[in-house]
Amino acid sequence: MIRVGIAGGTGYVAGELLRILAGHPEVEVAFIYSHSQPGVAVSKVHRDFFFKPEWHFTDTVSTDVDVVFLCLGHGLSRTFLENHPLPNEVSIIDLGSDFRLKEDAVFGEREFTYGLAELSTSNGKNIANPGCFATAIELALLPMASKGILTDSVHIHAITGSTGAGASLNEYSHFSRRLNNLSIYKPFSHQHLAEIGETWNTAGQTQLPEIHFIPVKGDFARGIFASVYTNTSLSNEEVLKLFQDYYRDSPFAHVSEDIIELKQVVGTNHCLLQVQVIDGKLLVTSIIDNLLKGAAGQAVQNMNRIFGLPETTGLYLKSIAF
Amino acid sequence: MIRVGIAGGTGYVAGELLRILAGHPEVEVAFIYSHSQPGVAVSKVHRDFFFKPEWHFTDTVSTDVDVVFLCLGHGLSRTFLENHPLPNEVSIIDLGSDFRLKEDAVFGEREFTYGLAELSTSNGKNIANPGCFATAIELALLPMASKGILTDSVHIHAITGSTGAGASLNEYSHFSRRLNNLSIYKPFSHQHLAEIGETWNTAGQTQLPEIHFIPVKGDFARGIFASVYTNTSLSNEEVLKLFQDYYRDSPFAHVSEDIIELKQVVGTNHCLLQVQVIDGKLLVTSIIDNLLKGAAGQAVQNMNRIFGLPETTGLYLKSIAF
Amino acid sequence: MIRVGIAGGTGYVAGELLRILAGHPEVEVAFIYSHSQPGVAVSKVHRDFFFKPEWHFTDTVSTDVDVVFLCLGHGLSRTFLENHPLPNEVSIIDLGSDFRLKEDAVFGEREFTYGLAELSTSNGKNIANPGCFATAIELALLPMASKGILTDSVHIHAITGSTGAGASLNEYSHFSRRLNNLSIYKPFSHQHLAEIGETWNTAGQTQLPEIHFIPVKGDFARGIFASVYTNTSLSNEEVLKLFQDYYRDSPFAHVSEDIIELKQVVGTNHCLLQVQVIDGKLLVTSIIDNLLKGAAGQAVQNMNRIFGLPETTGLYLKSIAF
Amino acid sequence: MIRVGIAGGTGYVAGELLRILAGHPEVEVAFIYSHSQPGVAVSKVHRDFFFKPEWHFTDTVSTDVDVVFLCLGHGLSRTFLENHPLPNEVSIIDLGSDFRLKEDAVFGEREFTYGLAELSTSNGKNIANPGCFATAIELALLPMASKGILTDSVHIHAITGSTGAGASLNEYSHFSRRLNNLSIYKPFSHQHLAEIGETWNTAGQTQLPEIHFIPVKGDFARGIFASVYTNTSLSNEEVLKLFQDYYRDSPFAHVSEDIIELKQVVGTNHCLLQVQVIDGKLLVTSIIDNLLKGAAGQAVQNMNRIFGLPETTGLYLKSIAF
Repeated sequence: MIRVGIAGGTGYVAGELLRILAGHPEVEVAFIYSHSQPGVAVSKVHRDFFFKPEWHFTDTVSTDVDVVFLCLGHGLSRTFLENHPLPNEVSIIDLGSDFRLKEDAVFGEREFTYGLAELSTSNGKNIANPGCFATAIELALLPMASKGILTDSVHIHAITGSTGAGASLNEYSHFSRRLNNLSIYKPFSHQHLAEIGETWNTAGQTQLPEIHFIPVKGDFARGIFASVYTNTSLSNEEVLKLFQDYYRDSPFAHVSEDIIELKQVVGTNHCLLQVQVIDGKLLVTSIIDNLLKGAAGQAVQNMNRIFGLPETTGLYLKSIAF
Repeated sequence: MIRVGIAGGTGYVAGELLRILAGHPEVEVAFIYSHSQPGVAVSKVHRDFFFKPEWHFTDTVSTDVDVVFLCLGHGLSRTFLENHPLPNEVSIIDLGSDFRLKEDAVFGEREFTYGLAELSTSNGKNIANPGCFATAIELALLPMASKGILTDSVHIHAITGSTGAGASLNEYSHFSRRLNNLSIYKPFSHQHLAEIGETWNTAGQTQLPEIHFIPVKGDFARGIFASVYTNTSLSNEEVLKLFQDYYRDSPFAHVSEDIIELKQVVGTNHCLLQVQVIDGKLLVTSIIDNLLKGAAGQAVQNMNRIFGLPETTGLYLKSIAF
Repeated sequence: MIRVGIAGGTGYVAGELLRILAGHPEVEVAFIYSHSQPGVAVSKVHRDFFFKPEWHFTDTVSTDVDVVFLCLGHGLSRTFLENHPLPNEVSIIDLGSDFRLKEDAVFGEREFTYGLAELSTSNGKNIANPGCFATAIELALLPMASKGILTDSVHIHAITGSTGAGASLNEYSHFSRRLNNLSIYKPFSHQHLAEIGETWNTAGQTQLPEIHFIPVKGDFARGIFASVYTNTSLSNEEVLKLFQDYYRDSPFAHVSEDIIELKQVVGTNHCLLQVQVIDGKLLVTSIIDNLLKGAAGQAVQNMNRIFGLPETTGLYLKSIAF
Repeated sequence: MIRVGIAGGTGYVAGELLRILAGHPEVEVAFIYSHSQPGVAVSKVHRDFFFKPEWHFTDTVSTDVDVVFLCLGHGLSRTFLENHPLPNEVSIIDLGSDFRLKEDAVFGEREFTYGLAELSTSNGKNIANPGCFATAIELALLPMASKGILTDSVHIHAITGSTGAGASLNEYSHFSRRLNNLSIYKPFSHQHLAEIGETWNTAGQTQLPEIHFIPVKGDFARGIFASVYTNTSLSNEEVLKLFQDYYRDSPFAHVSEDIIELKQVVGTNHCLLQVQVIDGKLLVTSIIDNLLKGAAGQAVQNMNRIFGLPETTGLYLKSIAF
């Protein structure tokens, strides 16, 4: 059994992680750290865990674990590791943004690998888990980037569910306000742009295109729906073949010729991509569950890779479908 | 023109009141008082008022008005009137609960009338505006109470939209949590029970039945959907005639023989009642918009009555329908 | 491996069943019968199955199976079995209503057992799977019925998600209409009343109380939220102990003292019950996912019992939570 | 009083039109034509009209009217006018697409004017009412087009509510499917592209830019949320001034410097535009209620112009806000 610790246990991402790990056949949860709620039952915060009354948050970080997932919020992982030194043989999977960019990827003797499984066959033992928008967008054009043929501007419009903003309360997170509502935020300047560029570069796109990205706050809780287009000289058939070949062995990235819709992936660790060429433009629609393939699911996928398990172990998650 | 002041201008109910008054042909808004946001444009808080850039909150209460609406939150109206004395000739319409019960209905020389227009033909000049649940439930059985034939237990189940809880932020008001969710609160003990009993008593029900009331927090923003039943010895035809006769001249209370659904009234000042007798039980389904007939709309209806206008003036409000 | 056939494969319930069975470690899907769409890929109908391109509907019913699930719609199971005779050693789990009542429970040499696992320790090999409303309501008072202390009227108000009405298209199933809307249907006459009464009777309630049941169509897709109350002479502590004792060994029925909310169970096979005694009234709030504990999940639970597996096999289903 | 006839009375747009006209002080509804439901009460179809029991659909088209609104669905207006000849002095306002393009704008002696009030000061007496997407998108760049400075590609992403697809039933319109879901349709090829180009051309943009348009089906009933961007050499201040000057006298088009959100306009006839220049790109967010400014509201605005009324007559519509 893999002994797992979780830090930052009260947030949405930690909740999802626990929901997955509770059904993972090779995992034993060793501790669920929370600075703010030590001693409190997990079921008081993640209320669907009424069937796990034995789980409690703790403020003690055990070093007798194989891997620690950091779900601390962006910018807090580094501080946590400084305050809670862990032996180098303990793997770290960081779900924050602290170690995603190459310039940030070293912490002491640890070197973090950007954990997009579809990008690389090898894997480090310390993982910077990709951002949610970044995952949906990177996968949308990874096959193109791998050929270095992303030569023209990329236009991205992506709608995210409310869980992407976490559990924090503010005027805009109020149910009465967000219901039946839409707005944009951080147009052309979302913080995931840098990791998207780096990932396509790693894949083979040495000269990066201009990226135009409009993120939208959607009227639902779960999922990211991204439409991505750029000019291409390839035909529809060529593009389809390129994508299908690229993702042939990926258990969680799939290519579709049909119209796709967000709920095909909500509740699962899948990314589904519809690709089509229309009048010289490649349009890719890319959908994921932001909390799963966009966070906790991908983190478990990375854990499976670190420990030599099949990538899919514990990750058959029933789609919510409705 | 009726000169209107509003106190407690930043809440949901005040927002609705302003939306109605902005289209009311006989009203001039004199001041919009807010303790917390004086000087701020109304459109910064009620964001749909971008077309009224001239409206600002003030912390000055002018006495040169004909009527003041109090939208202060329950228990704060009395204090407000103490701190901001208003001439007796200025009418007060209180949308809080301070003056609803008979034992609370006097403030200095003012006497407050419970402002359920369907209950009484006369009207005072100081009004305690009924609660939202209370309005839906009282109207459901007012014709029965008027005959004194509410002899058996009354069972009420009523589902409210999120706007019923106002703009306050708490864990449960978070969009991610409330979406697709339901819960009950204050079972058998909701604070509106007392005013419901008093109203039926005023209508003619001297001996009050036991009332069992389960309020439910719904997965939508606007509206109250109440199902109310009690035993009856009347036939379906008798009940239908009783209700139709009782509400014949009410412009905002209507009786239906067909299945009704909440959105028939959302966005309007109407109360719609479906009545049917099944196996000796009278079942009334009662629907209102909690912010309109349940609050701001009914308050304007009361203002119209005070100033001798047709009850419907400024209250044709297009249903949202979808 | 248990070889499974499914009849009526295109409906919502069959979709959920397939989603569970795809992750069940002891099951092999032998056929997915559909009269209307033979030869069509399952992923064309249940669109989240893009990762199972090999699954197709068939109009051939193989007899080389261990169990057949009937998901045909109410009243069609009997006809199906007449037209597609199956060997007696093949178990039948009927998700329709055909065999639920004792008077309907025999078909040829088969005798159907009402498949509420929490009611009985033994199990037949042919199962009439309980209705969704029936499941939520029966479990709400089963401990009381087991003591024969349901002596006074029972009042039930239950709100169901849209999936309860299946995939059929009609004016009311239109998104634009049902969104933000509510209505009641079949007041005091829902077709599940008979099986509820029989179940409580089987549990030990020889003299059945009067049942008043108002079903409500909710503004969400998944789940049933039922509030159930009746008079009781027991104290809060006594009731709590009774319920906790009764469900102590049930893996999918749980008792809570805290306020509960629907999404604690959506996506799972759990039933969660909040019990409280207020002024001589026992109030039970009962929540389930109508497609899981209310249909496909409970059916798999019954399958596990038939074949001697732990009841929970393949039924750890991650809550959707948000 | 303006005597009004409506053809195609049972659809969503006709319903909205009736809701507006019922509160319009200068209008008398002469007939509500429906081929399919003559004799039926309007309240049986548009169920919020329970307070107008006297309104019934008819299959007779009276010629004793001043204006007829055609709400027939795209392509059916021409046929209707052929089958029901109306005197030339009766104005026609067509809410379908039949007469929107210049090449289609003549029918017998009638010449149809494209009825975007913000584009032209004069008005014909026969109006082709703009499409819903077209309205939101045209207004987003009309000031730029009026200067002929739309020189570079235009990128549009627009999310529409379900009412945009009308009342027709199909698999995708099912509540259980569309809830919490998103999909795109007609990428780069929506039928409104031609009228958008013509409108910008009429405004002054002789050389049209390439337009890239992705329409998205949203998870809500009402509204269009469009984000539109293109390169510009203007500064933020210059653009803001251009837009504010252009729309200064428009009662229903407004310019904002703040973040905007869809519900600021839902329920009203307003279009609200947020404009900003970021790194040489002009980004305009444009929001309307698709059934109001995008259809029935704009049609009444056009009627007001035809008959010399203030444009705003009968068009103060309370925002739904929540």
